[in-house]
Amino acid sequence: MTKTSFEDFFVVIPAGGSGSRLWPLSRADAPKFLHDLTGNGKTLLRSTWDRLTNFVPLENVYVVTGEAHRKAVEEQLPDLAAGRLLTEPSSKDSAAAIGLAVSTIRKDFPAAVIGSFAADHVISDDLQFQEAVGQAVESGRSGYVVTIGVRPTEPSTAFGYIKAVSDRVSPEETASVVTNFVEKPDYETAKGYLASGDYFWNAGMFIAQASVWWELIEENRPGLAAGLAAIADMRSSDEGADTNGLWESLPRDAIDYVIAEPAAAAGRMRMVIARFGWDDVGDFAALANIHQKNQSGDVAILGSNAKVVSQDSSGVVVSQSRRVVSLVGVHDIVVVDTPDALLVTTKQHAQEVKRMVEHLKLRGLDDVL
Amino acid sequence: MTKTSFEDFFVVIPAGGSGSRLWPLSRADAPKFLHDLTGNGKTLLRSTWDRLTNFVPLENVYVVTGEAHRKAVEEQLPDLAAGRLLTEPSSKDSAAAIGLAVSTIRKDFPAAVIGSFAADHVISDDLQFQEAVGQAVESGRSGYVVTIGVRPTEPSTAFGYIKAVSDRVSPEETASVVTNFVEKPDYETAKGYLASGDYFWNAGMFIAQASVWWELIEENRPGLAAGLAAIADMRSSDEGADTNGLWESLPRDAIDYVIAEPAAAAGRMRMVIARFGWDDVGDFAALANIHQKNQSGDVAILGSNAKVVSQDSSGVVVSQSRRVVSLVGVHDIVVVDTPDALLVTTKQHAQEVKRMVEHLKLRGLDDVL
Repeated sequence: MTKTSFEDFFVVIPAGGSGSRLWPLSRADAPKFLHDLTGNGKTLLRSTWDRLTNFVPLENVYVVTGEAHRKAVEEQLPDLAAGRLLTEPSSKDSAAAIGLAVSTIRKDFPAAVIGSFAADHVISDDLQFQEAVGQAVESGRSGYVVTIGVRPTEPSTAFGYIKAVSDRVSPEETASVVTNFVEKPDYETAKGYLASGDYFWNAGMFIAQASVWWELIEENRPGLAAGLAAIADMRSSDEGADTNGLWESLPRDAIDYVIAEPAAAAGRMRMVIARFGWDDVGDFAALANIHQKNQSGDVAILGSNAKVVSQDSSGVVVSQSRRVVSLVGVHDIVVVDTPDALLVTTKQHAQEVKRMVEHLKLRGLDDVL
Repeated sequence: MTKTSFEDFFVVIPAGGSGSRLWPLSRADAPKFLHDLTGNGKTLLRSTWDRLTNFVPLENVYVVTGEAHRKAVEEQLPDLAAGRLLTEPSSKDSAAAIGLAVSTIRKDFPAAVIGSFAADHVISDDLQFQEAVGQAVESGRSGYVVTIGVRPTEPSTAFGYIKAVSDRVSPEETASVVTNFVEKPDYETAKGYLASGDYFWNAGMFIAQASVWWELIEENRPGLAAGLAAIADMRSSDEGADTNGLWESLPRDAIDYVIAEPAAAAGRMRMVIARFGWDDVGDFAALANIHQKNQSGDVAILGSNAKVVSQDSSGVVVSQSRRVVSLVGVHDIVVVDTPDALLVTTKQHAQEVKRMVEHLKLRGLDDVL
């Protein structure tokens, strides 16, 4: 293990996103991060919190979430320090959410190193995670933006990729130079990525000095930086300040476009290779895969009251009702049974559930979204 | 139309069978005949009643059902004449059920012609049905046992078949000689049957004089005949007579073995060809086929409160809950959504639902059966 000190390391956990590919499990009022998707008895948010506060001081951890989820997050994280829960009046995507925390932290702790970690990913080895974050923090202290990349185990089309090449400058090979970020590829491209060995899954983890974060935001989205600075100022001088109007004026952007891609283009991005298992559990196929590894039988079952009887079938059943769910002769099936909505699809079609959610909106069935 | 008189024609409607291939729609306490499977607003039992009482005098129609369903049947058929509802203390299969009615009718109406028609089949053309029954009654008056056979439209493996050859004796060709009855064939055999033109679906309709029915029962199952005669005698002299013990002693047999096959073997069986559409709706594939013919779109929907949203999918959804049912990328799917049980299967596996019901029994989940 490295002997990294984490006293000056601050963490942002953006707890947002509706997870519409996981509908009807994930809902507007019960988003993915509030679910226990691994069956370990904890929500993904709580698991993320535990994994980080294992080595990061409690008062260094900030959570950014929508106003609507403030109460749920407080219930999940009773040990969250005062002033560390930042709320978004509406969803403005990840750059605004993470930027709000960066803008808040840098005011009080200008020398901080800040890392951002999604609230709703699944990570399998907490110690290896700590080790990787430690390496990233060390590299971040040298002025780099550091990401933690995951070595692909299959040609997944569900993730973005990071192209990274070995860093001749660093003999310990703890960090590689990131040359660019690429969007979710098609299957043939993903196969090429896997074969090349130069491509890694983008787990959305970014670590850099507060000043570097801010510099990149100011450089690439000056309007966003100005708005975020004003909001942080207003809120710090008056906790109840009405910053809604200002927030609504912020541009909507993903953090990748504002920080990661520009940093890579400028040669300022490094990557640490994850030695832990990672999945963003972005859809039901991913959820099935996680559980099929751990459960005997061909049908993975989630839900503490699940009563599932299957015959010549495989796939995953998520049961949030007390009903008997019976499967006969269906393969790679996905059944999500909730009190007011049922989804039946296949692992192959898991990505298309997002489109179903749009379909339901058009049909005026918003009450189940 | 023939000008058959139906004054001496008596009808037996055996309303039994759990329809376990239609679980969880069909249940022990809500068997198939109590469901509206066609979407015409009437249960199958009521449709059967209406179709028959269209031309048969009300007081000539008898219904045989389990004690447990007496009330439901009375509610469905308020116009059922006094003494025409016969109940079975337990299920003893079709020979005992129909035999009980024959034994009762022949006591009071020895010159009757009696026809038996299942309570839970779907028939598309009531006038052609009447025409066929009329022909069968005429032929029955000559001492034959007459069945109404359905010309196959596909090589179905879900039905038993009747082999019938043209009857040289009858120049009007209203009835053919039945040479034998065969069980549900495998697919290759069914294709051969279809190609030959000599095989017809066995719709389980039998028409004969009361004396002929009784003669065949006595000849082939003397114990059954003796028991049924005693029960009819006891009940006619005392409506509240306890015939349970006697009933329990009856042999369990299908009507085909007791009447149809022996009559065919003895050259006493004739067949009228149905010119109406017929289906026994024995499983969800049949149910899907019936509705896919009538509905636009690839997903047939049953259930007055159904809220079904589908995307790139085909099959059938039976909805008895108020939940939103969403399908994404599933083909020939069968989804049956009831308040306490959900079934997901495919049209190809529809026959195997029966095995699932046995599976559920073994798992002790009887409360959903």
